[in-house]
Amino acid sequence: MTAAVTRSEHDLLGDRDVPADAYWGIHTLRATENFPITGTTISAYPHLVDALAAVKEAAALANRDLGLLAPEKAAAIVTACREIRAGKLHDQFVVDVIQGGAGTSTNMNANEVVANRALELLGHEKGQYRHLHPNEDVNLGQSTNDVYPTAVKVATVFAVRGLLKAMAVLQDAFGRKAVEFRDVLKMGRTQLQDAVPMTLGQEFSAYAVMLDEDRSRLAEAVELIHEINLGATAIGTGLNAPAGYAESARRHLAEITGLPLVTAANLVEATQDCGAFVQMSGVLKRIAVKLSKSCNDLRLLSSGPRAGFGEINLPPVQAGSSIMPGKVNPVIPEVVNQVAFEVIGNDVTITMAAEAGQLQLNAFEPVILHSLSESITHLRAACLTLAERCVDGITANTEALRASVENSIGLVTALNPHIGYTAATDIAKEALVTGRGVAELVLEKGLLPAETLADLLRPEVVAGSGSPLL
Amino acid sequence: MTAAVTRSEHDLLGDRDVPADAYWGIHTLRATENFPITGTTISAYPHLVDALAAVKEAAALANRDLGLLAPEKAAAIVTACREIRAGKLHDQFVVDVIQGGAGTSTNMNANEVVANRALELLGHEKGQYRHLHPNEDVNLGQSTNDVYPTAVKVATVFAVRGLLKAMAVLQDAFGRKAVEFRDVLKMGRTQLQDAVPMTLGQEFSAYAVMLDEDRSRLAEAVELIHEINLGATAIGTGLNAPAGYAESARRHLAEITGLPLVTAANLVEATQDCGAFVQMSGVLKRIAVKLSKSCNDLRLLSSGPRAGFGEINLPPVQAGSSIMPGKVNPVIPEVVNQVAFEVIGNDVTITMAAEAGQLQLNAFEPVILHSLSESITHLRAACLTLAERCVDGITANTEALRASVENSIGLVTALNPHIGYTAATDIAKEALVTGRGVAELVLEKGLLPAETLADLLRPEVVAGSGSPLL
Amino acid sequence: MTAAVTRSEHDLLGDRDVPADAYWGIHTLRATENFPITGTTISAYPHLVDALAAVKEAAALANRDLGLLAPEKAAAIVTACREIRAGKLHDQFVVDVIQGGAGTSTNMNANEVVANRALELLGHEKGQYRHLHPNEDVNLGQSTNDVYPTAVKVATVFAVRGLLKAMAVLQDAFGRKAVEFRDVLKMGRTQLQDAVPMTLGQEFSAYAVMLDEDRSRLAEAVELIHEINLGATAIGTGLNAPAGYAESARRHLAEITGLPLVTAANLVEATQDCGAFVQMSGVLKRIAVKLSKSCNDLRLLSSGPRAGFGEINLPPVQAGSSIMPGKVNPVIPEVVNQVAFEVIGNDVTITMAAEAGQLQLNAFEPVILHSLSESITHLRAACLTLAERCVDGITANTEALRASVENSIGLVTALNPHIGYTAATDIAKEALVTGRGVAELVLEKGLLPAETLADLLRPEVVAGSGSPLL
Amino acid sequence: MTAAVTRSEHDLLGDRDVPADAYWGIHTLRATENFPITGTTISAYPHLVDALAAVKEAAALANRDLGLLAPEKAAAIVTACREIRAGKLHDQFVVDVIQGGAGTSTNMNANEVVANRALELLGHEKGQYRHLHPNEDVNLGQSTNDVYPTAVKVATVFAVRGLLKAMAVLQDAFGRKAVEFRDVLKMGRTQLQDAVPMTLGQEFSAYAVMLDEDRSRLAEAVELIHEINLGATAIGTGLNAPAGYAESARRHLAEITGLPLVTAANLVEATQDCGAFVQMSGVLKRIAVKLSKSCNDLRLLSSGPRAGFGEINLPPVQAGSSIMPGKVNPVIPEVVNQVAFEVIGNDVTITMAAEAGQLQLNAFEPVILHSLSESITHLRAACLTLAERCVDGITANTEALRASVENSIGLVTALNPHIGYTAATDIAKEALVTGRGVAELVLEKGLLPAETLADLLRPEVVAGSGSPLL
Repeated sequence: MTAAVTRSEHDLLGDRDVPADAYWGIHTLRATENFPITGTTISAYPHLVDALAAVKEAAALANRDLGLLAPEKAAAIVTACREIRAGKLHDQFVVDVIQGGAGTSTNMNANEVVANRALELLGHEKGQYRHLHPNEDVNLGQSTNDVYPTAVKVATVFAVRGLLKAMAVLQDAFGRKAVEFRDVLKMGRTQLQDAVPMTLGQEFSAYAVMLDEDRSRLAEAVELIHEINLGATAIGTGLNAPAGYAESARRHLAEITGLPLVTAANLVEATQDCGAFVQMSGVLKRIAVKLSKSCNDLRLLSSGPRAGFGEINLPPVQAGSSIMPGKVNPVIPEVVNQVAFEVIGNDVTITMAAEAGQLQLNAFEPVILHSLSESITHLRAACLTLAERCVDGITANTEALRASVENSIGLVTALNPHIGYTAATDIAKEALVTGRGVAELVLEKGLLPAETLADLLRPEVVAGSGSPLL
Repeated sequence: MTAAVTRSEHDLLGDRDVPADAYWGIHTLRATENFPITGTTISAYPHLVDALAAVKEAAALANRDLGLLAPEKAAAIVTACREIRAGKLHDQFVVDVIQGGAGTSTNMNANEVVANRALELLGHEKGQYRHLHPNEDVNLGQSTNDVYPTAVKVATVFAVRGLLKAMAVLQDAFGRKAVEFRDVLKMGRTQLQDAVPMTLGQEFSAYAVMLDEDRSRLAEAVELIHEINLGATAIGTGLNAPAGYAESARRHLAEITGLPLVTAANLVEATQDCGAFVQMSGVLKRIAVKLSKSCNDLRLLSSGPRAGFGEINLPPVQAGSSIMPGKVNPVIPEVVNQVAFEVIGNDVTITMAAEAGQLQLNAFEPVILHSLSESITHLRAACLTLAERCVDGITANTEALRASVENSIGLVTALNPHIGYTAATDIAKEALVTGRGVAELVLEKGLLPAETLADLLRPEVVAGSGSPLL
Repeated sequence: MTAAVTRSEHDLLGDRDVPADAYWGIHTLRATENFPITGTTISAYPHLVDALAAVKEAAALANRDLGLLAPEKAAAIVTACREIRAGKLHDQFVVDVIQGGAGTSTNMNANEVVANRALELLGHEKGQYRHLHPNEDVNLGQSTNDVYPTAVKVATVFAVRGLLKAMAVLQDAFGRKAVEFRDVLKMGRTQLQDAVPMTLGQEFSAYAVMLDEDRSRLAEAVELIHEINLGATAIGTGLNAPAGYAESARRHLAEITGLPLVTAANLVEATQDCGAFVQMSGVLKRIAVKLSKSCNDLRLLSSGPRAGFGEINLPPVQAGSSIMPGKVNPVIPEVVNQVAFEVIGNDVTITMAAEAGQLQLNAFEPVILHSLSESITHLRAACLTLAERCVDGITANTEALRASVENSIGLVTALNPHIGYTAATDIAKEALVTGRGVAELVLEKGLLPAETLADLLRPEVVAGSGSPLL
Repeated sequence: MTAAVTRSEHDLLGDRDVPADAYWGIHTLRATENFPITGTTISAYPHLVDALAAVKEAAALANRDLGLLAPEKAAAIVTACREIRAGKLHDQFVVDVIQGGAGTSTNMNANEVVANRALELLGHEKGQYRHLHPNEDVNLGQSTNDVYPTAVKVATVFAVRGLLKAMAVLQDAFGRKAVEFRDVLKMGRTQLQDAVPMTLGQEFSAYAVMLDEDRSRLAEAVELIHEINLGATAIGTGLNAPAGYAESARRHLAEITGLPLVTAANLVEATQDCGAFVQMSGVLKRIAVKLSKSCNDLRLLSSGPRAGFGEINLPPVQAGSSIMPGKVNPVIPEVVNQVAFEVIGNDVTITMAAEAGQLQLNAFEPVILHSLSESITHLRAACLTLAERCVDGITANTEALRASVENSIGLVTALNPHIGYTAATDIAKEALVTGRGVAELVLEKGLLPAETLADLLRPEVVAGSGSPLL
């Protein structure tokens, strides 16, 4: 006699067979049938799975402390949750990430997996819910409407930490180049037209500073995510959650995750509001905008090799063309640009989903989770790739850059105070007509001694005082 | 003695070991290292893999016809491509879908897989490129810049066909309900306020008509996608592609795919332009907007069961709440709304990527492919799910709907021509003050015989002539 | 004794004084108080005011033909409408363009202005509505819900015609440059890296072709706008509009406007649907994307004058800088870029407004009108400005461009078939190491006779056959 | 002999006549010809005109203090600037708000107006620039690239203050309703389905809390705007601005404006970066999202009067329909929705403009100014209109709301702990089948004494502790 390959489970729509070895149950089964949309299951979001387990663990401990859950049940649930957070059973989180129901199916999936693993730990078979029930025990005192947003927030905080680190790596890479190129003189440009001299170090310093500021903004935005609505239950009135539950669950969750979580002051508002996600996405968009601008610049500065700006060289990381031998393309900045465009699009998705919330709940948080998570993880990958496969290996064409300054008509702007306005204008005109360099003409006409000119073109003089290295 | 587990390959950056059993080679290897962004490889886009194989097959046949490629090489390439199109070797397409290089890595991946399979078919080992070379033979006369957009277009056409079919399924579902509900009288609403009577059949008919129109727009947009730039090579001048190649390759590709492909009149323009993709995405967005509007309506009409509109009932497909017994939520429309938000966000991503093209090429087509493909496939899934798991099972609360008409003050607008403006106004005022129904008052005051009133409320009279069923 | 400065009017909220000389009345007055949002009144949209007058005229004629409106009333209304369409009384359209109520206030404003002018024509004083009433006569058989969208469509068609002409002007400007520059050899670029040779004429030809294609798409989109819902009244059932009215009104409106208007087959759908506006905006966005791309290219190609690409010169139209003498900036392309960004943002606004429609009506058409109108008129201005103040005056740096080709390593790709792969590779390597030009090396080594090389670099050879001039 | 009607001015493109009485000059003239885009001049942005005058005044004082500008010139400039800030000469700011050149034309317009007014004050005629020059004196030590962004920031801070006040007004209006409705029992809803009881006061309290949080976020975002780059000159190196100038100018500007302005630590970064504007727009978008959601709710809750939710009544502010007597529509929330859609679209415009910045400057700040200013001022108007013309007059249908709770099946969730799960389920089933109310059934079956039930339905019990009034 062989083991049954399925077990039967029951819900308000009737009976269904689920695979005997599945930790998920009937609610999860129906959800997989109802939402065959993206093919990406929530197991692809390990931070979320871990966060769900953390919330379930915290709730079980709070319920135990309040005497609502038998200690042995609580212990089994806690052990199951810790196994999940240790990386086990993630493959059992099989519902599609984009789903109707405001995350109910994700919560149900978590309840069922935790319950069945806890049943095993208690010596029962999976599905024997009379001993420990997904809803009545694992979900006790909870609602999808407080569990899901709380888990999404905890997951987001951890994901953002990864992004913050990657941004620091990229900032350091730019910062090192800023130091390396501090003496490389070049023409600054406004509106793509030659303007006045600067150093290449200043150019890279600006990219580092942008990232530094963006990291500050991101750190501020993640602060808002620490505010949770656990204990709100269905709509924020805390119905069916006993006095003390919200605070106890929050305290346990803060301990489990190590995060400074706080309970929202107004749980009705907190349960319907997606403002913190909109804010977070807005900051991610800001980061994307500036990363994209920086990559546009890198591609522009490395354009050429001969019919372009040709100021810097990006390290070759792959062949650029099958038919043009030796062509090397700026593929790393290009992939970062594309991630940026994706993040900006995701921000619109998140905006629409947030706006579409109605009355006491926003039913569209699953797509917010999906888009936000994608933005964060792709930005993280983009920052690391950009740092390690591009910025770290950038070299400068120092001589050509210096020559472009000496050759530039914009140089007269800098010499103006030293040779007088009339002489400067004459030099500029002659340079324009003859195609010759300003520096050359100034020396030829004896308007400045060579040493003085050299002095005025020293990098530290050119750089001015406005852009200290970080 | 055991077989080597790796083989060595060479490119302009040096030597690298690739797994001996891999059909992909060194270019693919470098790409996987350079673009660790989404974790989603192009194998997840079977239409694209098939389309790449179709393009490689067409190019080989054209080259053979023109005497540029030895018949036995061509035959091996063709066989390899047909195997791929039959579903084999898809797992060898391992580069990340979002990649720098304008699709070069995708093209290289295809060249390498086709070459190595062709080598096997010719009795050689993988990697022995002196017998048949990924670039010199498989990619002969081609450039990423014509192969990749052509393949993306072919893939898009096939994906759109799936969407068109799904939209037809959904249109039919709405259409059947329009017929079923043709005699169900209800109040029409403008600005969420009670307006004038209509039939529920008209309401569903409108959803069917919207889909019908959207299908026409989509069919128009896909026409534009039939214009390809194969033969353009690097920038549209056709450099290195012999006379006759472009036309021959187009003809073969049209035969292989069964699509009415045409070569763009101006290949320089065609190689840099992403207008057809922007247009396609704009139409997908239009579809999303209207699907979302329809789902908003379905959720509104089924709100309740008691403290809402309560006009229709969506079929229950899963339990709605763990703590509110018996609650059934509109989860299918909700998931469709979220797909719509995603499509609208993707449109912004595609817009930005298209705008960012520079000079002779748009380097950002990979993210366009990714976003476009996601929009198409998710919309397809959403339409089918909505049809099968929601619309098909919708029922109407016919009695309550009719009562709402008779009870409505808006009814006076319809009775106006029959009882006179003054009487109508008086009735409206009395109905407002007393809370009683207009029909009831009209009958009580003998303003109309019961039969006349009944006649005026016959569905075919109410419906007017403005909305024939499809 | 002096004339009264106000007259009293009445609506369902009570009595209000309006200025005695105002053609608008109490409904307009309330609307100006309710919507103090943008400060821009609908008088700033002359196409819309004209279209409203055309609709009112058509309705009056239809009502007259059907015996519903006394001929002398109809005649007065028609005269009033024609005066408006001749440019009079536009300053009486004073409601804010962004307004609640689905355009009701705009419709009411039109009804009141037409009625009061018609009253004057009939020898009455303004406000003596017992002789001719804004609602009962001017609005007879109509509803805001069919009048407003119909007027918006008619206005849009006329605005788009202006845009189509401006695009043709710009296309011609690019086309003339394509001819002028047909013999100017230059390096083509992919991913901002030097690729293979082409002509500057081809580059400008591509911009002309893009506009040509966009004009076709725009002409297609405007076709959809010819479908109107006049006769639908409140929700599409045609309630209160007699048999024959819809067709008669459509016919009169088509005659008045000269447009091939058709009545929608399903008026319920047509009354709630904004698909045609979404489609139109999507096409405008496509135009914006490509205009912006073209302007990005113009700015790039004219970058310099020394430390940039320096391929073309944009005509100077104003001084570029107060502190950098002689600096001239690409201000015209820059303003076009900004219009493009605005159009892309407007598309999102229109998308959201369209998605937010509910049940039988979209209440948010006013913002759709506003955004669509802004996109069309700003794009028109941008095209004309770009043509006349920039493209027409562009000159090429022919010598430098030709030198960049001869100096380029990418040239070997073109010489490959003529000197052989091995020699080509050797030349490329030597050029890279020495910094010398490929043409120079080829001649020095006697790999090609000078005449042959010159022949291969003839513009018509380089251009290939892939980009015929329009 | 009459006065000349024009005067001749000169720039690097040649001579032009300007009207003799114009305070603006040749640079402004050319700009009006170059940018005929929107028809909206910068005089429509009074905060910007004032801010430009404040910057010019601060620069003049700094230059005077540093001995670079003669005291009498400085005094004349200061007086001219103060006149402008007092509201004079605003009509002289005639350049189009959307312009190429990174704001150069706006800066030039300001320089010319200030110079010509200062010339008058010194007893000269307009245009006699040898006495006081727009560039050499008014613009001394400055560049458009530091003046324009600084002025935009100062203008934005003042505009945001107006918005913050309007949001406070709206928050107070919602807050007062939260108190007024604290005892009004109603059904809470999730996913538009009846959920569990709450109070109407809680519902309005949530709207107030949302605004309170949004005000905090806006106040944070405006902090970032206090960082300016005055003294950066062209690209951030401070070229041509003497030591001490940046700090002196900042100090004077802070005094003039009363704002806590700080100079950016890295001026090269600050001159090219638009991050603070992107962040600001992101927060405005967040505000728009939540305002829109609140207005969606208000429209939903007031839907009816009979065939809708009918929970609250919005005050009638105008007639809703010409053909449906007595219809009153939610026009105020509708106009707010539209402003929200506009703000969300503007955010995309600003995002694209910010991303398009290149190298040392973002040339697209004019459209950022335009979009940001529009978002701020329209949101301000929307908040005030919503507060004063809608929220303040909202009334509740208290009896119907209470009945809906007693009638609701969702009530069993609340009674569950008191009557037991089995009884609760039975009651729910019976209520569903019979259509009767849960409260009624509970009393009939003697499951709870009437007093206990009444006690459980006391508003303060239902509300729970999760949503304290502000």
